[in-house]
Amino acid sequence: MKITAMNVIPVAIADAPLRNSVGIHEPYVNRIVVELVGEDGLSGFGEASYATKTCETLEALRADIVGQDSLNLNAIQQIVSARLSFPDEANLDPVFKNFDLTPRRTNSAFARTYSPIEVAALDLSGRALGVPVSELLGGRVRDRVPFSAYLFYKHAGGGGEGDDLREDIYGEAMTPEGVVAQAKQMIDTYGFKSIKLKAGVFPPDDEIAGILALREAFGPDVPLRIDPNCAWTVETSLHVGSELAGTLEYFEDPTPEISGMAAVRKGLLERGIDMPLATNMCVTSFGDIPESVARDAVQVILGDHHYWGGLRAVVELGRICSTFGMGLSMHSNSHLGISLMAMTHLAAATPMLTYDADTHYPWLHDADEVIQGGKIQFVDGCVPVPSTPGLGFEIDRDALQRGHERFQRIPYRDRDDVTYMRKTVDPTWEKKLPRW
Amino acid sequence: MKITAMNVIPVAIADAPLRNSVGIHEPYVNRIVVELVGEDGLSGFGEASYATKTCETLEALRADIVGQDSLNLNAIQQIVSARLSFPDEANLDPVFKNFDLTPRRTNSAFARTYSPIEVAALDLSGRALGVPVSELLGGRVRDRVPFSAYLFYKHAGGGGEGDDLREDIYGEAMTPEGVVAQAKQMIDTYGFKSIKLKAGVFPPDDEIAGILALREAFGPDVPLRIDPNCAWTVETSLHVGSELAGTLEYFEDPTPEISGMAAVRKGLLERGIDMPLATNMCVTSFGDIPESVARDAVQVILGDHHYWGGLRAVVELGRICSTFGMGLSMHSNSHLGISLMAMTHLAAATPMLTYDADTHYPWLHDADEVIQGGKIQFVDGCVPVPSTPGLGFEIDRDALQRGHERFQRIPYRDRDDVTYMRKTVDPTWEKKLPRW
Repeated sequence: MKITAMNVIPVAIADAPLRNSVGIHEPYVNRIVVELVGEDGLSGFGEASYATKTCETLEALRADIVGQDSLNLNAIQQIVSARLSFPDEANLDPVFKNFDLTPRRTNSAFARTYSPIEVAALDLSGRALGVPVSELLGGRVRDRVPFSAYLFYKHAGGGGEGDDLREDIYGEAMTPEGVVAQAKQMIDTYGFKSIKLKAGVFPPDDEIAGILALREAFGPDVPLRIDPNCAWTVETSLHVGSELAGTLEYFEDPTPEISGMAAVRKGLLERGIDMPLATNMCVTSFGDIPESVARDAVQVILGDHHYWGGLRAVVELGRICSTFGMGLSMHSNSHLGISLMAMTHLAAATPMLTYDADTHYPWLHDADEVIQGGKIQFVDGCVPVPSTPGLGFEIDRDALQRGHERFQRIPYRDRDDVTYMRKTVDPTWEKKLPRW
Repeated sequence: MKITAMNVIPVAIADAPLRNSVGIHEPYVNRIVVELVGEDGLSGFGEASYATKTCETLEALRADIVGQDSLNLNAIQQIVSARLSFPDEANLDPVFKNFDLTPRRTNSAFARTYSPIEVAALDLSGRALGVPVSELLGGRVRDRVPFSAYLFYKHAGGGGEGDDLREDIYGEAMTPEGVVAQAKQMIDTYGFKSIKLKAGVFPPDDEIAGILALREAFGPDVPLRIDPNCAWTVETSLHVGSELAGTLEYFEDPTPEISGMAAVRKGLLERGIDMPLATNMCVTSFGDIPESVARDAVQVILGDHHYWGGLRAVVELGRICSTFGMGLSMHSNSHLGISLMAMTHLAAATPMLTYDADTHYPWLHDADEVIQGGKIQFVDGCVPVPSTPGLGFEIDRDALQRGHERFQRIPYRDRDDVTYMRKTVDPTWEKKLPRW
């Protein structure tokens, strides 16, 4: 399908005051929706994390993408990579941009820019050929994709400002009891069968108490994960890993860098604890894998098509994981239904994806979704894999336009959890990783 | 496209008396053609190396494959892997089946059986959707695929017996002058820009002389490769590698096993020779890669969709090679145009395939080809990548039937170069690897 137009549409989504190791979510998170229009008038859609530079790069690529065949992803990939020199640290996920400990992300600029184009091209090709995206990726191995309950320590508030002020669905959660209540509410609504707690917010023993409260409330059949986003030293990571031995499904990014993760792995094994370490921070591109493999730094990679260079790249990542005896799980940022469906088709077509995927989707308000029919329905914690062409949804152009106008109206652009933390919670706040 | 029938058609091809490290080619080589018929009456084709057990396994799988969707390759793959336990040494390429030094091939039975089904399914899907197979693999990055001139030491004779006796196109080649003449004739006909010499036949210094004669005849702009199929000890490999330093593009399987190749690599580096070692014998499945990477045993993997588990598996192998800084080239056995076109679409859609691919196609006689219009035409050593649906050829059903009748008529079944060597060249012949 020849591509005749490409539209780059930044949109703003209200976001609740969720906490993490570097600060707090701002009242909005921005996303980029990419639309590719085919010569027969069909459209395909992809979604990316917002960064001003990603937006500008996508705009600059438009003239090269128009005229390409949506099925020829390799050609499109070469066009994008030819235009982007990497490593390009300036294009890192802004939340991490001032880390002293920034992981190597050699492929970052290319991968982040190419991904939404690839997803939109696959959606367009699928619609043109009358087949679901999962079939263009090799075919589904599962009819529904399980996701995990993604819990956050959270202040009161539902996100948004002014006319966009959203209902605080889950309420405050600043204690073990708070996260258990949040988990119960989220599981009641979505049916999730596993739980991830975003940590790195309170002193480690408080967060150990949070995990133990979840275990107490949900029992041993609900897998638990904790992710402090590099908030802990190797020593602290060993303490937490020892305390939670037998309780965690995997232990995500306790400490920065491949070297740190390798030290945690070694230390835990020396204590007789064979707990898989997972990452979306120290192994974030193909170039990071050889060192990680050589040092046995991580045992599970959290793939993310937005950051690894598209859906096909994550399928290939799955082959690498199975070849080297690693597991593959799936990372998430705040996102719309476009990315949820891309993740769903990807997971459906990736045999070695054996963990429930992360998603921020429960934190999205109905009012901000851009697909027809409102938010996608989960069944028993799973998203059913569509059999309809493309990604399997219809865009709601009015909602998309509202999201774009919201983006134009608000002052927030590149994500900056640190500044908003200073502004709303603690004027003396400093980024510090590891903190404990 | 729902699959409504699956036909497994063994065919015999006349084969010239080509020599290698274990013996000599028999007068025929058998192949398996797999046809998948779709509900709209279209057919897709794949081709496999013949082994009685592969043929029987394919027959046994028919009932499970019929009814599947040709686009759902992952589902078909799971059906095949569920039916095959591995490792299954009995299903190894028969030419290697009595090696004491058989490489690990954990995935062998599955990969060899699944591959022709996958190729046929991709061909069928492409025809049904109206797109070339290269587009189903992610799109072409080149419009023509370069192959290398594949030279053999060879006795007089063109292959076949009785009514099938074929013209001896290239004549005898048992000396350096003979292989130079063979190369000139093959390059005149096909336009190849690089040369591979199958070695392991004569004492190593004679074969060094063969490579040096080729360099003398063709100059430094024609890349040269030598492949003795594990005929040499580590010591001998170091001798040959030293003599041919600066002359070889890569050095293929001089010695058996990952440990042997790692020792050759180490020894050459110690002598200041950074010559890439290539293999299709010690790294032949994904399970072999971790040890090879850890020991830096090989720098180029010769992928082969017949043995690695299909076209998509080799695309994924390409990602692994680029991730770990290895090169990807392409291995060949004697084959028909079906496999040539599968290799062509694969190479077209694999950006990291940067070496000219091996092919035995120049050794195929016109009379044995099974596609309409006779043998595929090369242009300047390349096969143009078709833009027509599927693999881009039409089957010649009469020729296919003749090939099948030839198979039924002849006494040869599983390949056995050793016995035929005893029968026709040297009654005292023994397999011995390494020999020198």
